[in-house]
Formats: sequence, C-alpha cells, structure tokens
Amino acid sequence: MGAVADRLVELGLALPAVPAPVGSYVPAIRHGDLVRTTGQLAFRDGALTATGRVGAEVSLEDGVDAARQAALNAIAAVADLLGGVDEIGAVLEVIGYIACTDDFTGHAPVLNGASDLIEQIFGTAGRHIRYNVGVNRLPLGSPVEIGIVASVASPVAGE
Amino acid sequence: MGAVADRLVELGLALPAVPAPVGSYVPAIRHGDLVRTTGQLAFRDGALTATGRVGAEVSLEDGVDAARQAALNAIAAVADLLGGVDEIGAVLEVIGYIACTDDFTGHAPVLNGASDLIEQIFGTAGRHIRYNVGVNRLPLGSPVEIGIVASVASPVAGE
Amino acid sequence: MGAVADRLVELGLALPAVPAPVGSYVPAIRHGDLVRTTGQLAFRDGALTATGRVGAEVSLEDGVDAARQAALNAIAAVADLLGGVDEIGAVLEVIGYIACTDDFTGHAPVLNGASDLIEQIFGTAGRHIRYNVGVNRLPLGSPVEIGIVASVASPVAGE
Repeated sequence: MGAVADRLVELGLALPAVPAPVGSYVPAIRHGDLVRTTGQLAFRDGALTATGRVGAEVSLEDGVDAARQAALNAIAAVADLLGGVDEIGAVLEVIGYIACTDDFTGHAPVLNGASDLIEQIFGTAGRHIRYNVGVNRLPLGSPVEIGIVASVASPVAGE
Repeated sequence: MGAVADRLVELGLALPAVPAPVGSYVPAIRHGDLVRTTGQLAFRDGALTATGRVGAEVSLEDGVDAARQAALNAIAAVADLLGGVDEIGAVLEVIGYIACTDDFTGHAPVLNGASDLIEQIFGTAGRHIRYNVGVNRLPLGSPVEIGIVASVASPVAGE
Repeated sequence: MGAVADRLVELGLALPAVPAPVGSYVPAIRHGDLVRTTGQLAFRDGALTATGRVGAEVSLEDGVDAARQAALNAIAAVADLLGGVDEIGAVLEVIGYIACTDDFTGHAPVLNGASDLIEQIFGTAGRHIRYNVGVNRLPLGSPVEIGIVASVASPVAGE
C-alpha cells in the first residue's frame, strides 16, 4: 500500500463503494491532470446519514457527520476513477453546500467535517480552497452536498 | 455539417441565439482547451420559460423544460464562442441550481432535463459530472440556472 | 508599480489584508497557470459589512457594497499568493452567492458590484463568466460569498 492508503488504515477509515448516480451523470471525470467529482450526497451503505436542514431536523453534530461521509464518497469517486487512493496527488478544492435554516450560522464547523478529514488523510497535500454555501434544500433531502477537485499523483508528460 | 450539428437536426433541435447578459459579464470564456459558460437562465425567445420555484409555482414538468432550455442556451454559448457546435469536443461538467421549495426532493428528474439532452446530443462525449443544488431564489425568478464546462474538439499544440 | 497597481490608486482603492480563514482551508491555491480563491465573505477591517438577506435586513445598496468588498478580498487573496496584483493576468470567472429573500429579483445589480469593480481594475482582462445564485443563508450571515478564478500574468514554460 502507498502512503495515503496507510493513512486511511491508521485513521480507521475505509473508502466506501462509490454511490450510484441518482441521475444522468458520472461520479468523477478526468481532464488533463485534474479529476473533478459530482457533488456527493451523504450516502452511507446505501442510505443518507440524515435528511433535512441543519439547524432544524439535523443537529450540528449530524451535519458534521454527513459532511465527513460526503467527503469520503468524493475521495472514493476519485480513487475509483484513478485506480487507487494513492494515485491522488493533492486535493485542491472542496465545494460544499449545506441545507440549513434561514438563520443558521454554523456553516464553517459543518464543512470542517470534510476539510479536516481531507487534511488528516492527505496532510499538506490536502490544503484546499473551498466554497461553503447554505441552501434551502438539497437532492433527496441530503443535509450536505460536497464535491472535490483533485490532482493526479503521476501526470503523463505534456499534461 | 459535422456530426453534432447533424444530431441536433435529427433531434429536431436548433441552437438558440445566446441570451444577452443581464449584467457585467460574458456568456462564455476559453482558457486552454476548456470553455466555461456563465450560469444560463431559462430564457427562450427572450423570455423565461417559467418563473418561481419548482414544487410551488412551477411544476416538475415545467422545471424539466426549463432545464432543457438552459442547457441549450449553455451549449449555444460555447458553440458561439468556438464558431460552431462541432468545435465542441466533450461536455465535462454540468453545474445546476434549481429554485425549489423547502421540502422539494425532485432535483434529479429536473436536472436530468439538461443531462439527458446533453447525452442525446453528444453521446459518450456528453458524459459529465454535475452539481445539482436546490436554492430559494434565482435571478429574475428563473426556475433554474445551469452552466457547463466543455472541452474543444481541436486544441492547438501545447495546450 | 505595474499597470494594475496604478489603476487601483486611480480608483482610490487599496487591497485589503486577506481575511483569515474561518475554517480548515486556504484563501487561494494555484494549479498550472490558474489561481482559484475560496468563496470570500463581505469582511472589511475584520467585520462583515452587513449581515442578513438582501431584500430583508440588507438593502440593495448594502448588497452592492458587500459584493464589492468580497470581490476586493478575492483579488487580494490572489495577489497575496502570487506576490502582487500585477502578477494577475486576467480574471476569468466570478462565482457569486447572494443571501436573499424568497421573492428577490435584484441578483444582477448586486453581483455587478463585483463584476463592475473587476472590469474597472483589469479592463478587458477582467471580462469573465459568472454564476449568480440566490441562497437562503451564508456563513456568519454574510450577505454575499464571492470567489474568482484568475490566470497568472507570466506562466512558466510548459504550463
């Protein structure tokens, strides 16, 4: 195993199977030396970890848990496309949407569930920019939708 | 005509004129071998196909129609920039926002209006990742806002 | 000083210090010849210029002001990463979220606060595509969240 796969073991994490698309799209796509994922919902073992809006039906703690899960699903989508998590060179972007109430203010702690996980797994190669946006309703009632942009570890010459 | 233009004819579709920007921006921009569009509203012949939120003032069927139209507008913006629809190599990303009620769950069928159309037109070159995000209100009350990222068919050497 | 720095002086503008991240991320990241920023909030001198939703607690005028400030913060984040505002070659994308009421329609004037500023500073090199999306609630109650994608003025060979 490579360094990233080792780190997952140390953290007690296993990459999930990539959730099946719920529409006419693919989980991840590569162009040049970058891979971009579809916005991933908080699916775990085939079901959403929670449904509704953070600040109402979903607690802050459950929002953080959902963000971790969606981030894991996004990492899994990239790893699946590239043939392994150690083929990921760096995570450059996290694009996160949080279903929340109209007066919610805890967006940062929720999305840190994703950002902190990525930094734990990838170290300095996991330092990313991000969008953190509250919205009124996500597909299927998922509390979060999170996509990532990653670079490949070994780009071919000329990319 | 090239293969994509032929396919549009087979589907009974014509690319619309690119809607005039409603602010200080351009409809599409190229950098390297990628073209990115502005998020397109559901304009058809100068007017929005519907206004309001899917699940309330806008039916699911009208949401699908709006998504198809916004996707056509986005394809038109890329084709206009490149000098023809056959200059588009592939559609890599669809970024979709759907104005919806707080308890809506039909985001996937609505955005499939865009995704399915792109796959009908471009075939396997139309397989894309996507973001599908519900929001409370889009510009001018458009039910959807959809942008795409496309690659060019014939990148110049070194890109 | 270079041309862009001169233009800032003519406009009576000074780039602010880059706001400290409120989560586990960085303000900007470079990949190849592109720099992407985190979605910037309307921080000015350490505090938000306003809080709430445009159309309710926040006036249209204050929304425009917030958009200008967030755009300045985004430009500052790119300039800080590259070592100066004249290292920015062009601004290619503006991604804007506006916290607004469910019946708001003035998204374009608000985000033009950002777009117009960018064109004033960068001229034709500031012509960009954009996403302009209304949402119910942004982090810390900021009225806007705006990120940009910029190209570097002097890419190294092979990029």
